[in-house]
Amino acid sequence: MSETFLIVGGDAAGMSAASKAKRDDPDREVVVLERGEWVSYGACGLPYYVKGEISDLEDLVAVTPERFIDERDIDLRMGHEATAIDTDERIVTVESDAETYEQSYDDLLISTGARALEPLIDGLDLEGVFTLHSMDAGREIKSYVENEDLDRVAVIGGGYVGIEMAEAFEAHDLDVALFEMLPQVLPTFGESVGEAVGDELREQGVDLRLSTQVDRLVGDGTVEAVETDDDSVPVDAVLVGAGVVPNAEIADDAGIELGETGAIATDEYGRTNVEDVYAAGDVAEMTHTVTGEPDHVPLALTANRAGRAIGQTVTGTETPVGEIAGTAVVKAFDLAAARTGITDEQRANEAGFDPVSVTIDAPSRAHYYPGGDKLELTMVADRETEQVLGASIVGREGVAKRIDTVATALHEGLTVEDVEYLDLAYAPPFSPTWDPVLTTAKVLNGKLG
Amino acid sequence: MSETFLIVGGDAAGMSAASKAKRDDPDREVVVLERGEWVSYGACGLPYYVKGEISDLEDLVAVTPERFIDERDIDLRMGHEATAIDTDERIVTVESDAETYEQSYDDLLISTGARALEPLIDGLDLEGVFTLHSMDAGREIKSYVENEDLDRVAVIGGGYVGIEMAEAFEAHDLDVALFEMLPQVLPTFGESVGEAVGDELREQGVDLRLSTQVDRLVGDGTVEAVETDDDSVPVDAVLVGAGVVPNAEIADDAGIELGETGAIATDEYGRTNVEDVYAAGDVAEMTHTVTGEPDHVPLALTANRAGRAIGQTVTGTETPVGEIAGTAVVKAFDLAAARTGITDEQRANEAGFDPVSVTIDAPSRAHYYPGGDKLELTMVADRETEQVLGASIVGREGVAKRIDTVATALHEGLTVEDVEYLDLAYAPPFSPTWDPVLTTAKVLNGKLG
Repeated sequence: MSETFLIVGGDAAGMSAASKAKRDDPDREVVVLERGEWVSYGACGLPYYVKGEISDLEDLVAVTPERFIDERDIDLRMGHEATAIDTDERIVTVESDAETYEQSYDDLLISTGARALEPLIDGLDLEGVFTLHSMDAGREIKSYVENEDLDRVAVIGGGYVGIEMAEAFEAHDLDVALFEMLPQVLPTFGESVGEAVGDELREQGVDLRLSTQVDRLVGDGTVEAVETDDDSVPVDAVLVGAGVVPNAEIADDAGIELGETGAIATDEYGRTNVEDVYAAGDVAEMTHTVTGEPDHVPLALTANRAGRAIGQTVTGTETPVGEIAGTAVVKAFDLAAARTGITDEQRANEAGFDPVSVTIDAPSRAHYYPGGDKLELTMVADRETEQVLGASIVGREGVAKRIDTVATALHEGLTVEDVEYLDLAYAPPFSPTWDPVLTTAKVLNGKLG
Repeated sequence: MSETFLIVGGDAAGMSAASKAKRDDPDREVVVLERGEWVSYGACGLPYYVKGEISDLEDLVAVTPERFIDERDIDLRMGHEATAIDTDERIVTVESDAETYEQSYDDLLISTGARALEPLIDGLDLEGVFTLHSMDAGREIKSYVENEDLDRVAVIGGGYVGIEMAEAFEAHDLDVALFEMLPQVLPTFGESVGEAVGDELREQGVDLRLSTQVDRLVGDGTVEAVETDDDSVPVDAVLVGAGVVPNAEIADDAGIELGETGAIATDEYGRTNVEDVYAAGDVAEMTHTVTGEPDHVPLALTANRAGRAIGQTVTGTETPVGEIAGTAVVKAFDLAAARTGITDEQRANEAGFDPVSVTIDAPSRAHYYPGGDKLELTMVADRETEQVLGASIVGREGVAKRIDTVATALHEGLTVEDVEYLDLAYAPPFSPTWDPVLTTAKVLNGKLG
């Protein structure tokens, strides 16, 4: 009898693993348990669905359940929730509407993802209060925005989701107030990006409230106000974007080791501490390429490629899941902000480096070519090894893919001078002769002396 | 007395070297001989000046002669041409309008650039026939286009300059015929890019004549027709963009070694075979990072950074000039085409590799996000080492800086699988989850087995 590869959770990591395993070994029995009604969806597209740029929720689905089942011959079970794992017996307990049963496995992948973090404030259960971490939530928010008579919306949290949803709400002509506990938005992007994006949000009409702790949401059935230390802001709806929590309880209960981040600890092949049990995606830790330490950066690409690698490993070709650099980009109205690696000196110090950094402005095109704009770049290096540790870029064009140059450099541990001497593409419509990344390295190299 | 650093040629390489040397050692005597009336200009901007997007030729100048002389204390001599070098006596013969004199040096940099290649056809001396490799030529062409009553223009050569000038002429509502000897435009970009750019040129109204050898230009004083084997095409002006030739004669005459490409042979510090004589920019060879062999790829960034490195070396901090990957990007109307490294199997074979390559289409943004477009990517690898050898990308957005990821990978000799597992930036407005570069590596890796 063929061995069973059982996958718990059918989004990016799970379905990538299932597809790859089935492609590499068509005889392998691949079972996917998905508790919800969606698989393989692009949650990152939800803000643009709410905004109205994407008309159907179904457009976000890359591959439908029917195609996984019929074309890829994957035993995908929708509405089936894994509730317990017995790693000694290699059995998972499954609950569906119809039954509770035990499913055995030879290899197990836990790809249960993450859920929206619910901050410890009162009033989250009021009507009109939403988080955005599922397709159904996206549909509910859009319906609420379109069908209720809303004027003012609060966004709690200035991370990716908060900023993208502020843009989505503004597109519906709503007044948006954004509350962020910290003194800047996008804290993981470093200070210079936070300032630029903060300015952009204000210019676009967002009532930005930094260093502001929300104490509670109040209302009579439906949310009516956001209360802070010293203010009460009337609102008709609230979007909470306070980060995510890995859905790691099922692993923890089964004695599978979690890391310090609360996500499942994994090795370079995505293996947990229990034999033949893997974890990938938003529920799992990955190794950070700069620090060499485990980290939890739940992003789509990481999930996809780790799932794919595990699908390969399980079917006989041992494949590392790769390291992460924390590379990310976010659209904030007309700005793009990107980051990779370690973007500020404080975080570099915490990771044991002796950091030196620069922040510079550089034009996105040749100085004489029309239509360009200013980019702001920050680059951080270690004084002793002169290795680049990370960078951030913010601006109106040429941001997203410029950060990839630095991300690639991080994977190889390039020094600042290595980066300064990269042969990058130049033509007046696309870049100055010295690409802004090169110029930043040049200035940083000067500071390293 | 202070040592003299003498620089022959005041464009990108020369002025970068002069500026850096003077900054690092303000006491050093730095003399620059420039035979023309322009220094430190962006020749790459000339097509856009002719097109009309840049109003003043002076806008292309990064730093004026006055600033070099007054602010940077460089002994810049405009209209002074070096005519001979005596490397034994360390003396350069200089001619200016006023005098002929001998200038001694301790260190010498030859940065005499390149000139437009004149193909072996009759009629190049007719009025209305131009090349584009100097500021003055740019001015003449623009004046001719604006003041003469032109209808039809021929462009000879389908490289960067030919394509950019076709766009410039079309912007003046001229009928443009482009003649290219080879079966594709942009031959160094590989076949897939050539086809895509060829299609774009035709769609934009260019009469594209591939595999067409121009025999002669004919006319009575002024050019009237371009004659090929089997056709005579009436024209009112001709732009010849047939490539460039290094201005290496002065070096050759002085016994300084040239490489097989006809450019001056240099080592990793930009040194020629003669002590204390350096060469940089369009007149010099550089080491190609993929082949490890000398190559001649005359581009602006290479000149700038080699000049800068030599300025540093001469003043006491030995600094390699860096390797080249032949990274380039060109705008062709609404398309951008980019390349790095070795972009086709034939060239890879010639360089001693056992190549395998793929060409794929991939979306520039998430499939559901509006406004994206198709990119076409080619990636070449060596079957034995699995190293990436090069890539090309063509499309309407996100081309120029995506090639930089591959360029960075080439500098470090990354394998296809290394590239497949890079952590690159993703957000729906900027990229699919798997960036097209990653997808290309993934497909190529599959082909490597």
